[in-house]
Amino acid sequence: MSSRAGIVVTGTEVLTGRVSDRNGPWLAEQLRILGVDIAQIVVVGDRPTDLAQALRFLADTGVDLILTSGGLGPTADDLTAEVVGWVQGRPSELVPALEQQIADIVTKLSAGRGWRVDPEATAAATRKQALVPVGANVLPPVGTAPGLVVPVADGRSGPPVVVLPGPPRELQGMWPAAIADPLVLDALAGREELRQQTIRLWGTPESELAATLRDNDAKLAGLEITTCLRGGELEIVTRYGPDAQSAYDDFAAVIQHAYPETLFSLDGSTIDDQVADSLRAGRLSIATAESCTAGLLAARLTERAGSSAYVLGGLVVYANRAKEELVGVPAELIARVGAVSAEVAEAMANGARTRLGADVGVGITGIAGPGGGTAEKPVGLVHLCVMSDTRTVARKIQVPGSRADVRARAVLIAMHMLRELLAD
Amino acid sequence: MSSRAGIVVTGTEVLTGRVSDRNGPWLAEQLRILGVDIAQIVVVGDRPTDLAQALRFLADTGVDLILTSGGLGPTADDLTAEVVGWVQGRPSELVPALEQQIADIVTKLSAGRGWRVDPEATAAATRKQALVPVGANVLPPVGTAPGLVVPVADGRSGPPVVVLPGPPRELQGMWPAAIADPLVLDALAGREELRQQTIRLWGTPESELAATLRDNDAKLAGLEITTCLRGGELEIVTRYGPDAQSAYDDFAAVIQHAYPETLFSLDGSTIDDQVADSLRAGRLSIATAESCTAGLLAARLTERAGSSAYVLGGLVVYANRAKEELVGVPAELIARVGAVSAEVAEAMANGARTRLGADVGVGITGIAGPGGGTAEKPVGLVHLCVMSDTRTVARKIQVPGSRADVRARAVLIAMHMLRELLAD
Repeated sequence: MSSRAGIVVTGTEVLTGRVSDRNGPWLAEQLRILGVDIAQIVVVGDRPTDLAQALRFLADTGVDLILTSGGLGPTADDLTAEVVGWVQGRPSELVPALEQQIADIVTKLSAGRGWRVDPEATAAATRKQALVPVGANVLPPVGTAPGLVVPVADGRSGPPVVVLPGPPRELQGMWPAAIADPLVLDALAGREELRQQTIRLWGTPESELAATLRDNDAKLAGLEITTCLRGGELEIVTRYGPDAQSAYDDFAAVIQHAYPETLFSLDGSTIDDQVADSLRAGRLSIATAESCTAGLLAARLTERAGSSAYVLGGLVVYANRAKEELVGVPAELIARVGAVSAEVAEAMANGARTRLGADVGVGITGIAGPGGGTAEKPVGLVHLCVMSDTRTVARKIQVPGSRADVRARAVLIAMHMLRELLAD
Repeated sequence: MSSRAGIVVTGTEVLTGRVSDRNGPWLAEQLRILGVDIAQIVVVGDRPTDLAQALRFLADTGVDLILTSGGLGPTADDLTAEVVGWVQGRPSELVPALEQQIADIVTKLSAGRGWRVDPEATAAATRKQALVPVGANVLPPVGTAPGLVVPVADGRSGPPVVVLPGPPRELQGMWPAAIADPLVLDALAGREELRQQTIRLWGTPESELAATLRDNDAKLAGLEITTCLRGGELEIVTRYGPDAQSAYDDFAAVIQHAYPETLFSLDGSTIDDQVADSLRAGRLSIATAESCTAGLLAARLTERAGSSAYVLGGLVVYANRAKEELVGVPAELIARVGAVSAEVAEAMANGARTRLGADVGVGITGIAGPGGGTAEKPVGLVHLCVMSDTRTVARKIQVPGSRADVRARAVLIAMHMLRELLAD
């Protein structure tokens, strides 16, 4: 049996979708690496009773540890520390040394940002953030808010609660101190290694994979397999203990055998990893010309550190005149076959290569919608072309869904076309 | 008292962060519009006991309705319908008419995508998706999976559960049928109007706002105020019933009075709305030249439908040679002051304008990191310039955090500089 933990993410802004939660999944992954399994993530707004209910629910499921993120700021709706103390049976009190430490941080921060600060407001905010449940361990602030590890009151039973700040940078910065805390180490003493492997297919329907899993059901004991289809990539994630390693190896062999053409990642590498590795290995440079995706592919290719080694740049050619002048698509060609056409996608890929002096060029032109579609060229039609000096790969796709869906899918398909182009 | 609902998002891929949940927040917002308040969103993996626990927890909190998303696919880890039936005391049975309907959809879909399909695998998948808890209402499929409204078994008490598919497009497409369902209408009969207003400030510290809220505490009865700082934008969201409208109006006036310089949105409009509206109203075109943000600003400006009316295009100039050749930054200038400098940002903004023939140009050049920083020009240093034919706004910023943080912050600041440039 591995240890189990539960996570509470607080914040009305997360509950209502104004901010998407990055902390719950990040914590889940960090805990998995430690061999701690996550049962539930509960998102609650900034209301004390809802937060208290969520904490009690997770404690009742029998988890060994609870972690919270958010609600440590200076405003009155930031109430996590107080509510956790209340649920754990530990009232809060002011810790003067901590108050001074926070005050010093705020003073330095405000000076750096050039903020005009009201001393009285700052003092009140600082005082609030220095209130700590009696008997809790304090984790040093990364931003202005300290974290906490709050055990249950003496004589009661239940898991300790690790209270972490909401800003992902602060939460992640505080993580090493959190997992080194004696109360946390003690709570997770029973953990065992939990392995995770990811396999990715491109173009296999989920129902086919379901049949393969059913046919091999007897061999899958000890493996927790989850599948997820996203934008045409079918991701198979398997978790298992060390004693199921040979079962996993057999399963991976089954998938290799069943899907030789659509399997593109057996080692968990992403399409982004593979394209970057191929460009690096081949010492190839790349340039893009994008219409409907308008920079999304260039932004994706440059997401990773060191991408300047192979990305030269790109052209976002939204207007037809930009297609003509910046990429060199002949005006006559646009007039004859239209801006959304295989010919223009190819001219764009070629123009990106020549204008930027790159080895590999990409051209994407399509109708992202919701307007601009016709019977012949409906919304969701996208032409793509990727080109090196020796090969060209072209595709025409018809993507269902929203403007954002069409743009995202076109970028993903371009990445897979690049993989195909660069494969030896 | 308004009605309350709880949401369960299923899927190990969501719990572990491989896919970020879009459904919980979307459902929360749709329910708010209907006057239904959300207490908690629980994210669970594909494990029957965890899902059952989450359903029971939400029922125990006394909500009027529970909604689930995900777990309706054809693989064995998709088990929501079965578990909901079990928790509600209603075993599942095959509905032949539904099986036929799903089979027809799958056949059509596979043909359109050119998938080679194994008939036996498809039949098994279809059969699984046509299993319905006895006495549940079926919501017609938008993709292949039907939705369900599952009441508790006769003689027991508890809220009905609305079971919706995981893909956001399918879930959103099914929503009108879900809220028209008689069981859902009955469960939400007690709802009252819940209003929501958003105010946005740019550059006010959260601690200042906290002081303003404390000073005006007596006036805020009936208002549920939450604040959230993201990337320098301080967002104030207030929820209230119709009888607190005058309290809200007073509160908005307090904010207007306290923060005349940093208040940029009193009507909930976003910075994206405001920049788009200003460009449209002024009949101005825009073009970008981006280095470290590498297309992210162009992609953001073109996120909205109809942006082709004012976005001409952009230049992603990652390599110095691209800066010289595509945007016309003098090589001598780069050699003299460096690619990351106020001078180059200005030359890029100017180059974007002239090369694309746009009214407004943007130049962004910086060091996104993690490598490439020096003592004089550290990681996180970004120079920005926005320019029209009559005005220029330039800024130098130093952003903490990761590569992604630096890129995102630079784009947000560029948007606010555009607002400033375009303000009359």
